[in-house]
Formats: sequence, structure tokens, C-alpha cells
Amino acid sequence: MGAKLEVTYRPSDKTAHVPAGTTLFNAANWAGLPIESTCGGRGTCGKCKVRILHGEAEPTPADHRKLDAGEIADAWRLSCQVEVHEDIECDVPRLMSMPKAATMGVNRFVLLEPNVAKVAVTLPEPSLEDHRSALTRLAAALDEEGYETNPCTRVLAELAMALREEDLDVTAVIVGDHLVAVEPGDTTDTMYGVAFDIGTTTVVGTLIDLRAGAPAAVASTINKQAPFGGDVIARMGHAMKGDEELEQLRLAAVATINEVLEELYSESGIPRQKVYELVIAGNATMLSLLLGVDPRSIALSPFTATFLEPLDLPAEDVGLNIHPDGRVQTFPSIGAYVGADIVADVVATGLVREDRTRLLVDVGTNGEIVCGSSERSAASSAPAGPAFEGGQILHGMRATDGAIEGVTLTNGTVELQVIGAENGAQPRGLCGSGLIDVVAQLRLTGLLQENGLYMNDEQAASHPLGANLRDHDGIRAFEIAPGVVLTQLDVRELQSAKGSIATGIEVVMGALGLQAEDLEEVMLAGSFGSYINPESARVVGLVPPVAVEKIIAAGNAASEGAKMALLSFREREIAFELPNVIEYIELSGAEDFNERFIRNLAFPSLEQVAAA
Amino acid sequence: MGAKLEVTYRPSDKTAHVPAGTTLFNAANWAGLPIESTCGGRGTCGKCKVRILHGEAEPTPADHRKLDAGEIADAWRLSCQVEVHEDIECDVPRLMSMPKAATMGVNRFVLLEPNVAKVAVTLPEPSLEDHRSALTRLAAALDEEGYETNPCTRVLAELAMALREEDLDVTAVIVGDHLVAVEPGDTTDTMYGVAFDIGTTTVVGTLIDLRAGAPAAVASTINKQAPFGGDVIARMGHAMKGDEELEQLRLAAVATINEVLEELYSESGIPRQKVYELVIAGNATMLSLLLGVDPRSIALSPFTATFLEPLDLPAEDVGLNIHPDGRVQTFPSIGAYVGADIVADVVATGLVREDRTRLLVDVGTNGEIVCGSSERSAASSAPAGPAFEGGQILHGMRATDGAIEGVTLTNGTVELQVIGAENGAQPRGLCGSGLIDVVAQLRLTGLLQENGLYMNDEQAASHPLGANLRDHDGIRAFEIAPGVVLTQLDVRELQSAKGSIATGIEVVMGALGLQAEDLEEVMLAGSFGSYINPESARVVGLVPPVAVEKIIAAGNAASEGAKMALLSFREREIAFELPNVIEYIELSGAEDFNERFIRNLAFPSLEQVAAA
Repeated sequence: MGAKLEVTYRPSDKTAHVPAGTTLFNAANWAGLPIESTCGGRGTCGKCKVRILHGEAEPTPADHRKLDAGEIADAWRLSCQVEVHEDIECDVPRLMSMPKAATMGVNRFVLLEPNVAKVAVTLPEPSLEDHRSALTRLAAALDEEGYETNPCTRVLAELAMALREEDLDVTAVIVGDHLVAVEPGDTTDTMYGVAFDIGTTTVVGTLIDLRAGAPAAVASTINKQAPFGGDVIARMGHAMKGDEELEQLRLAAVATINEVLEELYSESGIPRQKVYELVIAGNATMLSLLLGVDPRSIALSPFTATFLEPLDLPAEDVGLNIHPDGRVQTFPSIGAYVGADIVADVVATGLVREDRTRLLVDVGTNGEIVCGSSERSAASSAPAGPAFEGGQILHGMRATDGAIEGVTLTNGTVELQVIGAENGAQPRGLCGSGLIDVVAQLRLTGLLQENGLYMNDEQAASHPLGANLRDHDGIRAFEIAPGVVLTQLDVRELQSAKGSIATGIEVVMGALGLQAEDLEEVMLAGSFGSYINPESARVVGLVPPVAVEKIIAAGNAASEGAKMALLSFREREIAFELPNVIEYIELSGAEDFNERFIRNLAFPSLEQVAAA
Repeated sequence: MGAKLEVTYRPSDKTAHVPAGTTLFNAANWAGLPIESTCGGRGTCGKCKVRILHGEAEPTPADHRKLDAGEIADAWRLSCQVEVHEDIECDVPRLMSMPKAATMGVNRFVLLEPNVAKVAVTLPEPSLEDHRSALTRLAAALDEEGYETNPCTRVLAELAMALREEDLDVTAVIVGDHLVAVEPGDTTDTMYGVAFDIGTTTVVGTLIDLRAGAPAAVASTINKQAPFGGDVIARMGHAMKGDEELEQLRLAAVATINEVLEELYSESGIPRQKVYELVIAGNATMLSLLLGVDPRSIALSPFTATFLEPLDLPAEDVGLNIHPDGRVQTFPSIGAYVGADIVADVVATGLVREDRTRLLVDVGTNGEIVCGSSERSAASSAPAGPAFEGGQILHGMRATDGAIEGVTLTNGTVELQVIGAENGAQPRGLCGSGLIDVVAQLRLTGLLQENGLYMNDEQAASHPLGANLRDHDGIRAFEIAPGVVLTQLDVRELQSAKGSIATGIEVVMGALGLQAEDLEEVMLAGSFGSYINPESARVVGLVPPVAVEKIIAAGNAASEGAKMALLSFREREIAFELPNVIEYIELSGAEDFNERFIRNLAFPSLEQVAAA
């Protein structure tokens, strides 16, 4: 990991702590200091110059191209060219002036600087004296605007076509350093991208107007891989059966995304030709399957992924229907089970960029955990099994019509929140949030003991809800609704699931030297996590004993993170650095994991809960 | 253009004269000084270090990565990182030791350093302690070998598949900075590429074993665009009819290349999956049509191309059937009518890298002309019309069975070389070389006068071949064979064609301040040029009056140049610089072009010819 280096920016006196090798420009982004730039830190626009006050910074060829000899002698440098290899101090003369920005994610302020740029230029007319090619003339015009690009194959034909009518006004569409399109006339008013969160269950896409920074449409659908397995473990099992099955899953992922895209296009009226970039977050398995990458190395010990790095790929190669030369950008992952979705969560919550010490938990088949602050942070993943998704629970079910999603036990009555009740749905089973709720309520009413056993018949006899405790096929169970019970075995499953996540949290916090009282906020993320009752999460011991008001639902933070990276190249650069910044802790590597896990099977005492 | 800068290399004391901005590494290639390198000048292998003795060279980030602080303080730099902006002097400690090389082109010595590299690596085994992704482990192994690459989309799936059987030995296939494939095991013994010359008439492909530097198969076929027009002018005319016609021509070009590829695969037994790169030379129109680029800007004044620059494109985007992630590299062009084929000719002949002053002429519908030496060089193109391809000549024809390709007039007899005569073909007409031959012979025997008029009847009466001069449909004509005549109008056509090219040569040589006596060699290139009888070319005045032994056929030099660039990244770098090195002269811009042209319609006097 290596020690972090300190960068100090004058005159604001802001500091950033970054790993060696980060550029002054990106380090400034970390510090929330937007140095002016149009090229996004590629050394081509020359706007991001800073003066080095303390520390080494040899001028590079880009410095020589964009700065004059006097400036170089006076220690002016392009901040995007200076890699930090020691503590460094510099003067920043030009911050972004009047930046366009939007509030996104969890109260994050995001500058509107998408990786997609549209540049309208009027090419100089060719003549017998100026026989430069149209491409050269276009490149020169773009260079003046601060862009250096490589043309995609089709761009050459487009350029010829755009110039055919002797109109020299064209718009270059640039994604990163790829010249992906040349459009006739000035088309700078239409520029779109889509942010995707590829969940194991649900795929959500948000079509964004990159100029306005506003969503134009949102669409979601069930992941078409679902028939091949309900969770990541089952999906991987299917993929490992053979190349045909792997291809089945790849095609299902591609079809799912394309269906969402079609829906976005039809809902918004935006044609696919105006959508130039996709940013995708998702767990490492989902990203692997999308690219047809055999996930067996993720499934089998020592659990390493084929790739964790962010990928910039042609959308056409991936099979996704945006502009034919559009690009796909995936988020990086931290580990095989701390995926790109979690990195997007971190971007959306700003977890490692703020001073506050926070904990983020994404609950699913795995519980992914990130904890820390701008000072130091660590992440891990704990296997939770399918309990939270309704698996292995006698009357467990997914969060669809008839699922009990909330339970209150008071004065001898059982109050239920049932999905679809307004349309007459009757309770049919328990979804994850309902499961946690009912267990928490059973604990609070005393029907369930600290060790996870139901109270015995003698004790139950005097309890207002004791009558609901009865035998169900030879196993002790609590009747929640007619035909819906929670058995002693179900409670054991939940204990195991929450025990694993709680242990993961404990190990991560331990590595950072943190206690529950150090936590200023606990964020529950993911489509399931957001529905958990914070109080219940605390009562069952899924999260550390903190005041209930410190526990918040972060919503679909992965989608928000993807949107932020789509809208801001600075946020993207930060996302790309996260795997170098957040320490990865392998739970299988924790020596006392099993002992801790067994200790965490028990529920917190009611005294502990009340004290927090 | 700008003045050239001098680079001096110690201890060899070799010098190179290069345009500003050339790197020390590439300038050394110009001087024929192969500085050691495996990455081809990308700053990633660190082997090309030199010590700066005189001149400025700020260290770059690549220098800091590959050299230690002491070396940097001692003025050691990676030669591929230092751009020349003033005269500079450096010490080169490491030349390529025992380079593998081959003789190619016109006596060119080419180092075998293809742009395609295969690197066999054994990946470190993953473990709970080392959870780096397979891609990270591969990238680290390649970095150690001096390569930094970006993975193509399919590589990720291939990498997972290669590692599936727990075999950690893989071979990375790198083209430029693209990681195009990962193959299981060690496959470094099979590595192929194809060099193409896309002619208007014929398309030639050479499959090259990039490891041995030897051709594995050669195949050629008629350009499938032929039905849409015999020459570039007709092709452009068809393309300009509409998008459908343009697409017709694109598909025809793609089908032609793919047919040649299929033939190469079947002839050699090499599968397409082992062919990773195509290098393509061809005139600007052929390259445009291959990419579906409307050629109208080339066809219409001021005759500018959509692109002249070398393009590095995915083969799949172009539609060419090599390895699915293989790359296509096109040669750069100098002007709309001095195309990539001529640049390849220059590479093959080393015209601008030797001290000798030489002239290269590629004769076709246009005569392309390059003249000069390493000191200075210039190029132009003169419209010749279709005469040399048999067009506008009464009994003109292509060089197929029955075409008269050589003529000797002696002692009152007409001796003919007829294509296919060994199979009984009878003379049916004149192809280009036969046309030049018969006109030259008519001049030498006096039947044709300096002004291009046939001898009159009175003079003819006493000439041993006078009887062959007769009236043909009211026009004076010479009977070459039964039913094959050369009319006075045909002679005019030839005068016009050769007059145009001769004028082009005159203008180019004039710009360089050269006289005929300065020329040390005249090279006739192109599939047609190579068949011209050098003596006849001189007699008709197609080339300047030089001793006949100075006139040589350069053969299919464009194919040779493409092969050289395929086999050597250094030759490729030089090819890419040529448009900056060779001055382009627009003939329409020469003030006295018309006067010169009219003067050049006449044939040289026999005294002139004899004196040379």
C-alpha cells in the first residue's frame, strides 16, 4: 500500500494525502480543488498549470509544448504532468471559475465535466497552397481547443461525408482520447451517456443529458441471467458448467442492458446515435459475465478475479447498443468480492474523502464492508449466504407481492407491512427486511433469547404473544401470519448470516483500530440494504451498537456513483484510484475469524442495544 | 517544412538530419544506427538509454521510472523520450547486438523487429496473500519485459480461459501497445503478418513469418473494384454517384483483400488466428475506398484527401479477416496523388536515406515522382491519362495475352515480344511498355520525327520500314502487326502522357536545383513501370537524359516497403516521418507548367539521347 504523501495547494492551503504516483491535478480533485482543465488531465489543453513552490517536478515534453521557457524556468508546470513522489507544495492560480455543478449521490457536489466532449469547429478551407488532409485540419482545430485524439475507423468516412456539401462546420465527438464521431454542423446541444448498475437481481440504467447534468430517463429490469441462478454463487456455478453456459450468461447480460437502453431511448425520445458513453458499476462476477470471462477463479479459492481494473472498451465489442463507436467504461473493483458496485458506493458517499469516520455495508449474498475516512480506510467481504434474499428460510421469499417487509410486535399483536397490500396482497412469506424486522421484534419482546433460542413453553405461557410460539413440523416456530412462521432453524440461518457480516465489520474496524463509538455514521447500501429498518439492524447485531440516528439508508448508491463518474472525469479519476487507497482485507486470512464468528452468532444483549 | 536539425552519435560519429520533434531514438534509425530496444520506442523497456553530451534534454516521467537519480544527474536519458529541438550530441553505449536482419526492398538491410511481439510468461500463482487480478499479474510480467499494453475486449475472456486448467504459462500477443490476445502455453514460435499493396488493378499480399523474417506465401488477385472503373479516376467517378456505389467499392476492396488472405491461409496452412497485423500500402484513393471514405475531395480541385496520416485500426472494424483483435496499419500519404504506395516505394529504395541523388518514377494514370537524397527531397504527381494502361490508344490494351509488350525495329523487320506467345497467343494490341517501345524504336529508326509527326511519304519511300507507314481510316499510322497499328493520334496521346510526367520531373528537379547529370540513378517503379525498357523510356523522353545503365526497374517496391514496415518498427517510424521530410510540390501551382508541358511534348533529339 505504501505511505501517503502530502500535497499542499496555495493560496487555499488545502492539502491532499495521496499514494505516490498520483498527479498534482488528480490530488487536487481529492482535496475538492477543481484546477481548470478542458482535456481532463491529458496534458493537451495546457490550462492546469501550477507553480511548484517546494518539491521536485522535472518538465515533461507536454510542459515544453504548452509552456514557454520563462514559465518553465519559473517552476510553472502542468499539474496533470507532475507525479507526486515526495511531499510537495504548489501555487494554483486558476481554479475552475463558475463551474457547472450538481448535487448527486449522498450530498456530493459534482462538477459537470463529462469524459464525453463535443467540440464544434469550422475547418479552414482547403486550397492548392494548403493541401493538408481534412483529418489534419480537424486535428489542428481540436488541438487548439486542447484535445488530442485518435480517430475511430468510421470517423474517416463521416468526416468526408460531413464536408461533402462544402460546409466546413463540423462537431467532433470525443470520448477520452478517442475521436468517436464527426457530425455535420453544430450538434453540441445533444450529448448523452448512460450510467448502469448491473445487479445480480436488477439492472438499472439512467440516461443522462451530459450537457445539463440531468437524468433524461431511468429504466430498470430483472437481470435476464436470473433463470440460470438466483444469486452470484448460482450464476458462477452455471457459468462453470461449460463454454456454452458461459456464453448464455454473457448474452443474457448483454440482452438485459440492451433492453434497458431501448426503454431509455423510447421513453426519452433520444436516439442511440447521441449516446456516446456507458459507465458501468456492478460486482466483479456481473462484470466478468458481461464480458464472457469465466468466473471460476472468483468462485474457487484463493478467490482472485481475472480483472479488477477499470476497463475502457468499445461498446460494439461488448455488444451494447449505443453509438457504434461509443465507449464502455467499467468501474474498478477492489477484490473479487468487493466489486465495482462497492467502489461506486464509495464514490457516491464520499466515504474516503471526508474526515468523518463512517461504515458502509452492502448486504446481499455477500456483505461488503468499507470503513474509514480520508485518513485511512479498509474493505472486506463476508459470505452471508442466501438468507437475506429469502433463501434457506422456510417461508422466505423475494421482495415481491405478498412478502412481509416490516413487522411490529406490540401489546400482544402482530402488525405487518406487506408488499402489495394496497392491492389486496395477503402475506405469503418473509423477505430480507421482514426477516430482520421480525427477529429484532422477537428479541425486543423477549420471545427470542440472546443465544438465539426461543423462550421455553413455561416462559411463553405468560407472554402476550406466547401463543404464537408453537411446534411446526416438529420444530419450534413463531407464527407471524396464517401460514407464515419463523422456525428455530430460520433464526439460526439469520444468526449465521448476520454473524458473518458482523465479524467482517469487526475485522475491518479492528484493522483500522476503530471502536463502535468512533463511528459517526453507518450507511446501509444496495437495493436490499436500503430497506432494512436501522433499529432492527442494530438490535439483531448486523451493525455495531451505535445510536439509531447514525444509521442511514444510502439508497442505490452504486447507480449514483456511476452517474457521478459519467458526469465528471474528476470523479472518475478518483474512482480509479480507490483500489490503491482502500486496504483490502481478506477475511479467510484473519486468524481468529472462526472464533469471532461463533461469538457473533449470538444477539447483542438488550442492555447493549439500549446503551448505544 | 522547417530546417533540419543535426544529431551526432558518439562514439560512431554518425549524424542524422531530422525535422524538429523527432526523437533521438528515431533519428538514430535514420542514421542506420539501431539503438537497443524491445518496446520500439514507447519508453517502457528502458534499454535505449544514451548520455547527452551537448544539448538540452529534460528528464520525463518515463526517464524517472526507468533510470535512477544518479543516471539522470549524469545526463542519461531514454533516447525514445528526447525530442530533438536543437542540434544535439549524445553517446550511445548499447547498439543492437547481433541483430537478426534480412535484405529486402532494393538492397535494404532490415532489422527483424516487428511491431508484433509475442511474450511468453509464467504468471505468479494467486494466493490468499496475493489477490491481484490475473490481468494485473500479466501486466506486471509484461512490464518486466518492457511492454505496457491496453487489453482488447476479448483478451479478458481468453486470459481466464488460458488459466482455467491451472496452467500459469501464457503467451501475450502485443501489437504496438494493444494486448490483442492471450494464448495458453508458449506459442512464441508462430507469429505472422501480411503486407499488402492495394493497387488499382492488382492487389498483392505477402504472408510473412515475423519470427524468421521470411515470406510464407504470396498471393495476388485482380482488384474486385475493376468492374466499376478501370483506373482511379473512373473509380472515384463511380464512388461519387452515391452512398450505395461508395459502399459497393468498399465491399469490393474488402472482399479482394479477404480473398487474398484466404489464398494465403490455404497455401501456407497458417490459420488466420495466427495473423496479427496487416500493413497496407496503396494510393490515397484505394485507401479511402477501403475505409468507405468518399473520395470526392481527392477528385475535385483543390485535390485534398480526407486523410493522409498513417492509421492504426482494428482489423475487424475494417472488415479484414485476420485474428479478430488484429490490427491494420496503413502507410501515410504525402498528398492526394502521392500516396502511401509511393511512400512505401521510398522506404523500399531508401531514396531519402542515402547520399546518392536519385529519381523514382511510378508510371500509371498518374506519374508519381520522388527525387533527391538524404540531403533534400521532393515529390509530385503528374496526370498522365490512361495511355500507359492502353486507354485512348486505338489498339491499346492491358498487359494480358496477345499484348505486344516489346518491339524491336531492325533491318526492315519488326520483331515483337507478345504476352502468351509461348502458348500461341497472337498479337492483338499494345500494352504500355509495348507502346513506349514502339514509339522509341520509331524514333530511333527515324520513322517518327522529333516533333512527333511520322515521316512523310517521300521520306518513307526510301526507309526499309517505310511500307509499314500507311493510311488507317484516314489517319497516318504504322502497322506493327497484322491488324495492330499505331496512329498519329496514338503518338500524340503518348506525347501528352510522357510530356506531363517529364514536366513533373522537371519541376521537381528544378525545385531541388538538380540537372539530369546530377542523377545517379533513375528508378522505374510500380507493376507497369518495372516492365518499361529503360532505353525506350530515355528515347521517348519519359525520363531525363541519363546513361541507360543508370535506369533500373525497382520492381513492386510498394509491396517491399510494406513488408519492411511489417518486419521492422524502425522502418515504420521512418515511413511515418516521410511526409514531413519530403517536400510536396503541387504542379498546378507551378506558374510555367503549361509552357513547360508544351515544350515537353516533343521527343528528345537523337543527339541528346546519344550524348547522355
